[in-house]
Amino acid sequence: MGELTGYRGASLKVLSQYEISVGDLILVKAKGTEFRGSLLPRYEHADDRHVVLKLDNGYNIGIEVSSIESIKKLAGGQKPSFVAPPLPKLDPKLPKVSILGTGGTIASRIDYKTGAVHPAFSAEELYSVIPELARCAQIETEAVFNIYSENMTPSHWTKLADACTKKARSADGIVIGHGTDTMAYTSAALSFALQGIGIPVVFVGSQRSTDRPSSDAAINMVSAVTFAARAPVAGVYVAMHAKTDDASVAVHLGTKVRKNHTSRRDAFESVNTSPVSYVIDEKIEIKARNLPPRKHSILESRSKFEEKVALVKFYPGFDKLLIETLVKNGSKGIVLEGTGLGHVSTNCYVAIKKAVDDGVLVGMTSQCIWGRVRMTVYSTGRELLNLGVIPLGGMLPETALVKMMWVLGNFANAEEQKKLLQNNLVGEINERSPLERRSK
Amino acid sequence: MGELTGYRGASLKVLSQYEISVGDLILVKAKGTEFRGSLLPRYEHADDRHVVLKLDNGYNIGIEVSSIESIKKLAGGQKPSFVAPPLPKLDPKLPKVSILGTGGTIASRIDYKTGAVHPAFSAEELYSVIPELARCAQIETEAVFNIYSENMTPSHWTKLADACTKKARSADGIVIGHGTDTMAYTSAALSFALQGIGIPVVFVGSQRSTDRPSSDAAINMVSAVTFAARAPVAGVYVAMHAKTDDASVAVHLGTKVRKNHTSRRDAFESVNTSPVSYVIDEKIEIKARNLPPRKHSILESRSKFEEKVALVKFYPGFDKLLIETLVKNGSKGIVLEGTGLGHVSTNCYVAIKKAVDDGVLVGMTSQCIWGRVRMTVYSTGRELLNLGVIPLGGMLPETALVKMMWVLGNFANAEEQKKLLQNNLVGEINERSPLERRSK
Repeated sequence: MGELTGYRGASLKVLSQYEISVGDLILVKAKGTEFRGSLLPRYEHADDRHVVLKLDNGYNIGIEVSSIESIKKLAGGQKPSFVAPPLPKLDPKLPKVSILGTGGTIASRIDYKTGAVHPAFSAEELYSVIPELARCAQIETEAVFNIYSENMTPSHWTKLADACTKKARSADGIVIGHGTDTMAYTSAALSFALQGIGIPVVFVGSQRSTDRPSSDAAINMVSAVTFAARAPVAGVYVAMHAKTDDASVAVHLGTKVRKNHTSRRDAFESVNTSPVSYVIDEKIEIKARNLPPRKHSILESRSKFEEKVALVKFYPGFDKLLIETLVKNGSKGIVLEGTGLGHVSTNCYVAIKKAVDDGVLVGMTSQCIWGRVRMTVYSTGRELLNLGVIPLGGMLPETALVKMMWVLGNFANAEEQKKLLQNNLVGEINERSPLERRSK
Repeated sequence: MGELTGYRGASLKVLSQYEISVGDLILVKAKGTEFRGSLLPRYEHADDRHVVLKLDNGYNIGIEVSSIESIKKLAGGQKPSFVAPPLPKLDPKLPKVSILGTGGTIASRIDYKTGAVHPAFSAEELYSVIPELARCAQIETEAVFNIYSENMTPSHWTKLADACTKKARSADGIVIGHGTDTMAYTSAALSFALQGIGIPVVFVGSQRSTDRPSSDAAINMVSAVTFAARAPVAGVYVAMHAKTDDASVAVHLGTKVRKNHTSRRDAFESVNTSPVSYVIDEKIEIKARNLPPRKHSILESRSKFEEKVALVKFYPGFDKLLIETLVKNGSKGIVLEGTGLGHVSTNCYVAIKKAVDDGVLVGMTSQCIWGRVRMTVYSTGRELLNLGVIPLGGMLPETALVKMMWVLGNFANAEEQKKLLQNNLVGEINERSPLERRSK
């Protein structure tokens, strides 16, 4: 018996009977119809009543086991192998863009073994799936690491920031391929670490892998490279689908962006502000004023992040023990994700006071996502201020976490830490915003 | 010297000099202009350079201390006192609506002492600020408690559910005035506790207190009472401003609603679905199909909530110690707010496995807010499923927390708990949704 990954019960039985393995080209007769295609593997959690083929037209079909009259093996399984085409010839007058890979869906292909999506970044693979890249810019690529973005840690941010600092010496722009799950955390991290960078650094990802017809990988990547190569601005951005169609890609400020949908291609949104730019048909429309211009600069990168910082979401029934545990275990900072304008229940006050007294930086953000904390409106907010909780304005909770890690990682003086935390450094704080919410 | 709450430094000095107290009617001469009004108190955190008056026209003005030429006391301070008018005569043919008070902005007035907003619910106060109520329904009111909503706990939900069960015997509808901070948690709690209730239970709140011209309290309350009195449906809902104007109030399903802005009047939104109804000019437009109809029912209320349940948001740098601490301290359930389709970093797996092995219910939701977890797409998601993590579909993280508390509070059998958690009981899970996101 060959490999029959994921098949079990009735479907395993019939495939074993005909000595079929995953990858074999087969002809299945069922209810008088014939289906020709290669046998696909199944998820571990899939049912046991279907045999799944990839048909010659590229579609997958599940055939009910009970309806199968016969199976004929046409050819033995060919494990799909991947041969990247040679690098294209590049126009030496095009701007130079460095593409850094970290893993994630933008570079993923379907996993032959399990049928699921696996990240698999390499320069050649990227060129082969998105050949348009070669006409936007002279591209060089480097895989800094290759991990699922949920496994990204602050130490990865440091590595990535340092890689950007190095690349910025020669490149006209940097594009970072990144899994979408934690992309906004990493874009915030690099926004703080790479303050004063003279070129654009553009994060890009994909909500649908490149083997799917609905994949957003190509247009996102082409738009990100276009922006990195030619936009007249510097700083850290995220470029992702603006709508569900393929017409435009929105460019968001790295500190003001959030993944607000699990699966939609336009999942990324600017919060408390609008996208700074759109890329439509490889044309760049800058919408925001006051973006930093490109410049020649020797970048003084501050790329350390203190890992002992926690983001704690408050809810009814919240046990203050969590705060006490963090303090006891050496947390240097806690970002609270409070309710409304920045509140937690009064029974947390003692634990918060203890944290502040122990020198832990405690900041307040809102789980509302949109809007900003204002802790002078209600008496409970003012009590928290009196305890030493630092109000973090219109900062996203995720950005606030990253900023606190950065402040604690790069500055030793407590007063300076507090001041930096509350000062607007790279657009992360809205003092007041004409576009208070998403653009409806 | 009288009371000068909040004043300090230069402003305290000048007021003391003229022997002025908060509440005094005074005439201030500054730069050749005269200002007549009563002296307001200040926030503890306000600057020390202004003296603030409430002018006769109702506006507040801050006068810079250095510009003040003289102050004259016209009359001694009158502490504002509140006398509620007598209860209006009610039409005995109108439907009966029971309004339950819990505290919060809907019933708040400006706090004389600090200048801030304080909750102060009582039946008479409510009638006096929103006299329109008397023409919608025969109203009776009861203050179940009077707390800031951030101090609401699961035991308050039980009390409130039990109060509703009692009122449901005689009322045609119930309205619950609630602070907006945790209103969506409480509406989810009562949705589960009051399954099978035969009348509408409508939560209502206000983002702006009733002393402000922009207050949304009146129209929200009138619309909630209208819906409770006359809507042909049963179940638990939230009625709040649909837009920034005063034209319409949206009615959301109690399990699918979220406060998505700290301060906007239209902060509440249905997530992964649309509002079930709008109330416009006291007319009810039902939009959703399949809402439960009104019926006579003896309600079997299951109103217990297990408090030992935590909502834990994952982020890069997350310390698995938090999960370990919860398990060690007797948590019965943990709802993870993972990234994307439902992921956490692999270094949490050991702690999660230990939790599951110890009999802790572990569920997965997404911090994206919109969309739903799908843990079969990536290998890491499938690994979490194999560890025993329960995918919670399109449930809001906050609703999932409340549901887990409810399931653990009312059912002892572990298999039944898991099944109930994943079954759609009161509209909380989207299997697939035609309106995947907010209505743009």
